[in-house]
Amino acid sequence: MTQVSFEIRRGAYYDSVVLMQLQRALVELDEVTDAGVVMATPANLELLQQNELLPADLVAAPEDLLIVVRAATEKDAAEALSRVDGLLARRRAAVEAEFRPHGLDAATKMLPEAQWVLISVPGRYAAQVARQGLGCGRHVFLYSDNVPLPEEVSLKQVAADKGLIVMGPDCGTAIVNGVGLGFANRVRRGRIGLVGASGTGLQAVTVRIHQLGGGISHALGTGGRDLKAEVGGRTTLQCLDLLNRDPQTKVIGLISKPPDATVTRRVLSAAYALGKPTVVHFIGYPAPARSLGNLTFANSLSEAASIAVRLERESSATTPPAKAGDGKRSGSAVTRSGRRFLRGLFSGGTLASEALRTLGILLDPLFANLTSDSAAKLPDPLVSRAHTILDLGEDEFTVGRLHPMIDNDLRIRRFRQEAADPEVAIILLDIVLGEGAHPDPAAEWVPVIEEMRRAHAVEVPILMVGTQEDPQNLDAQRKRFEAGGAHIFEDTAAAAEFILQRLGVGLLPEGQPVALEALTKPLAAINFGLESFYESLLSQGAQAVQTDWRPPAGGDDRLAAILQKMRTNT
Amino acid sequence: MTQVSFEIRRGAYYDSVVLMQLQRALVELDEVTDAGVVMATPANLELLQQNELLPADLVAAPEDLLIVVRAATEKDAAEALSRVDGLLARRRAAVEAEFRPHGLDAATKMLPEAQWVLISVPGRYAAQVARQGLGCGRHVFLYSDNVPLPEEVSLKQVAADKGLIVMGPDCGTAIVNGVGLGFANRVRRGRIGLVGASGTGLQAVTVRIHQLGGGISHALGTGGRDLKAEVGGRTTLQCLDLLNRDPQTKVIGLISKPPDATVTRRVLSAAYALGKPTVVHFIGYPAPARSLGNLTFANSLSEAASIAVRLERESSATTPPAKAGDGKRSGSAVTRSGRRFLRGLFSGGTLASEALRTLGILLDPLFANLTSDSAAKLPDPLVSRAHTILDLGEDEFTVGRLHPMIDNDLRIRRFRQEAADPEVAIILLDIVLGEGAHPDPAAEWVPVIEEMRRAHAVEVPILMVGTQEDPQNLDAQRKRFEAGGAHIFEDTAAAAEFILQRLGVGLLPEGQPVALEALTKPLAAINFGLESFYESLLSQGAQAVQTDWRPPAGGDDRLAAILQKMRTNT
Repeated sequence: MTQVSFEIRRGAYYDSVVLMQLQRALVELDEVTDAGVVMATPANLELLQQNELLPADLVAAPEDLLIVVRAATEKDAAEALSRVDGLLARRRAAVEAEFRPHGLDAATKMLPEAQWVLISVPGRYAAQVARQGLGCGRHVFLYSDNVPLPEEVSLKQVAADKGLIVMGPDCGTAIVNGVGLGFANRVRRGRIGLVGASGTGLQAVTVRIHQLGGGISHALGTGGRDLKAEVGGRTTLQCLDLLNRDPQTKVIGLISKPPDATVTRRVLSAAYALGKPTVVHFIGYPAPARSLGNLTFANSLSEAASIAVRLERESSATTPPAKAGDGKRSGSAVTRSGRRFLRGLFSGGTLASEALRTLGILLDPLFANLTSDSAAKLPDPLVSRAHTILDLGEDEFTVGRLHPMIDNDLRIRRFRQEAADPEVAIILLDIVLGEGAHPDPAAEWVPVIEEMRRAHAVEVPILMVGTQEDPQNLDAQRKRFEAGGAHIFEDTAAAAEFILQRLGVGLLPEGQPVALEALTKPLAAINFGLESFYESLLSQGAQAVQTDWRPPAGGDDRLAAILQKMRTNT
Repeated sequence: MTQVSFEIRRGAYYDSVVLMQLQRALVELDEVTDAGVVMATPANLELLQQNELLPADLVAAPEDLLIVVRAATEKDAAEALSRVDGLLARRRAAVEAEFRPHGLDAATKMLPEAQWVLISVPGRYAAQVARQGLGCGRHVFLYSDNVPLPEEVSLKQVAADKGLIVMGPDCGTAIVNGVGLGFANRVRRGRIGLVGASGTGLQAVTVRIHQLGGGISHALGTGGRDLKAEVGGRTTLQCLDLLNRDPQTKVIGLISKPPDATVTRRVLSAAYALGKPTVVHFIGYPAPARSLGNLTFANSLSEAASIAVRLERESSATTPPAKAGDGKRSGSAVTRSGRRFLRGLFSGGTLASEALRTLGILLDPLFANLTSDSAAKLPDPLVSRAHTILDLGEDEFTVGRLHPMIDNDLRIRRFRQEAADPEVAIILLDIVLGEGAHPDPAAEWVPVIEEMRRAHAVEVPILMVGTQEDPQNLDAQRKRFEAGGAHIFEDTAAAAEFILQRLGVGLLPEGQPVALEALTKPLAAINFGLESFYESLLSQGAQAVQTDWRPPAGGDDRLAAILQKMRTNT
């Protein structure tokens, strides 16, 4: 038989390090067999129960501090609890030995060059501290979790308006100008810049890049929820833009847990508009292609790192690639004429599906008669809308009719209809050669393509699948289609790239641009919360100030509310 | 003003080629401006309307043949319609010039060595013909679409029981022993065998492999719905097994539109158990890794081809890789002891998520406290079930507590709890080094790992993220963990591979195995339906018989029902 005794400290605030150290100190006492020092949340109480540390007669609220010890006898347990104040005081004495400013005003006076405020105070206080930081024109690294989502949205809105960055909440890691914030590995400096809505993901990629001989310019965390619909990828977009302007960064890496679908499109549009080679890895997101323009899609964290290193070596070895963004942003002659939509008319379901996925990351709105994450279902397959991709080999089109790879009639009629639509700029086709297929597609298609190009100035990219050995002969068909003004591609990504260029796809970053000095000036920071983060800054040679932060009214919510009310009334 | 006139032939059957040719012949008549010859389905009527070919006073059922002409005058239109019978007779005369068996019995007498029956008759008759083919012990290539799903399930069940294959319905393409069936490109023969629930996808991959200098042993279509839950990937599993046994095939490629989630797991388990390097591309499916064991995941059709060619060259250049299947199928000592489950205890959310995705394709049932397609949500995060992966950095665990990368207490307690579970074989951890993290994880973890390994014989793979430059020093930590009996990995896929080997993952194919002669004997086939497929077989040097197939009662459903009833009653 053992005895479990406890003590509750209502509305008292201690930081997590103090609690961890108190628990350890209690466990180390000879008379104690186990101890728990936790905030009395339901989850924590369940954990205590699993460890046979839950007192039977406990009544506690989630904001209460609960100190529990298990010992052989009631006397031993009481003895241990009586030492809690002494153990806490020992810790406090150590902390209070050096002077620490309490608030941001005092801290910024001590270190005016601090551009960054690091925050790891408990979640329910963190937004308030972050708002103060932004108010003083400082960027914020917000490590704290359990910050409500609306607070995150509001903070990032404020920051964007001021040209400031909020990394987080729940941002575990960053490397800014060679200095790690929060959790960060020591890695070689180099020319790969990372953005990540994923803490350990970003760490794993920086480590792997280092091990492959590459180096990091900056690794910018955004917080795990940045790519949620409510937040809209605000920090990610800012960081992409920063890295694109940063002269130190030659290759960009974008890492995240699966983003929201609309945010995916927005972020990838921005990444696609960058001038720099960019590797993308959204864990759990189906890559739409192996590569598309400047984007390369990875299938794992390790692979994201190895692609980044390869791209960086290629970019050093060769002249810089043409800035994809320049041409795209200006828009082509075609789209300026008011013809701005793509229509894809496919005979092959899989080819249609691949085109849909590849184009679906950037074209919006996109409709299809296929089921897809990246497009809306076309209400009436006979009437296209905006950008549309159709599989004319779907069952609905083939009752009592030959497959469109054999019989071109249906597709040619639809082609004429699409070309006559004054909003259509591009009509994408697939032409599949081989046994069983139409013996001479060029004979039927080329005259129609010529006629429609003359009448309506549509562009006609064609994805052609075939070999020299096929009965129709690939080269012979290609030449005749090209003579008719079509553009022949043998790969979906190449056709997609042509289309995206013609349509002028690419997203300009929104809001006030963030000044590049956020990254390029020597890092100096004011730290609220975990002292270990402060010590880590110093050990990395950065300038830092540790504040002696306390929650309002010492963590007593009722008292804090009264104080707040008094303040508002005066 | 033009005049639209029409004629309906109720319950009459003509094959699609005849209909296409009739329509063309009508359009070519001088007095005709446009014509349509279609089955009167709602979709086809809408198409007629778009082409101003829908008669105002039409009443027709979907199984009626509708012949419409548009001409300058009523007289011209009537004149054109009066020529329909003559045009149809011309076609029939051409067909009837050579002798053709009507049914399967007569056809198999003409070509007894025919192992394959090719079927491209209209969907509503196709299953019946396929059933006859299976009844005669023939494999079936079922091109027809619009075949009801339950018919597909039933046909594939019958086939599996007899050790036969049904490719399709809606199977557009195959290359068997060098001969293309349906739509197929002429490509080099070689050592890459493909399986695909995707017609043009498979064609595109064979073409690209050819263009990259590689070659195809066989390319086996399965029909677009084979990987739906109802069908369960039956044909795909048979084809994988066949290609694995085929001595000509050195590398396997598996291509599909996105499969159902359960079927994905089943098919990937089978592919993982193969002895041969295998490239997988499921369009729209988030690749769980870049590679895992013998599997490599591609992000596009083109890339699937280039990976297959690379793997084939590597497999020729080196000694064959160890047969992954052998060890896996036998199960390890650990799992034989009754300890058979994995528990993953992570401090990093992204690392947990990557492990979940990688292992989720093969482990079942798998639970997690993270949202994921590949695992069920753990009802109570404090109690693991079956295979479980936990992110202990989730908000629910961190209220008032330090992150598990700093404070090991919570994770160590959970580790002890999992190790004591008599069903647990393996506990996977991540250890993240670096600034901000625990200064010496080995000091706290190694004694516990040693104790739990002694007490419960659990295996402890660890995903370690860190560098030599980190304050904790990667190598020093690694050595101490290894001395304690842990296995250190620096990449999720490597850790996953260790775990899968230890757990003995791998699925044996079900049902009667298909005899390898299906692929290796010279191809001979009986063709029901599109003559062009028959002609294509002959032109490729294969033996073939074309049947003169007619639907029951000449396509008159009412009459067919009466005949069927009379037959049943006698």
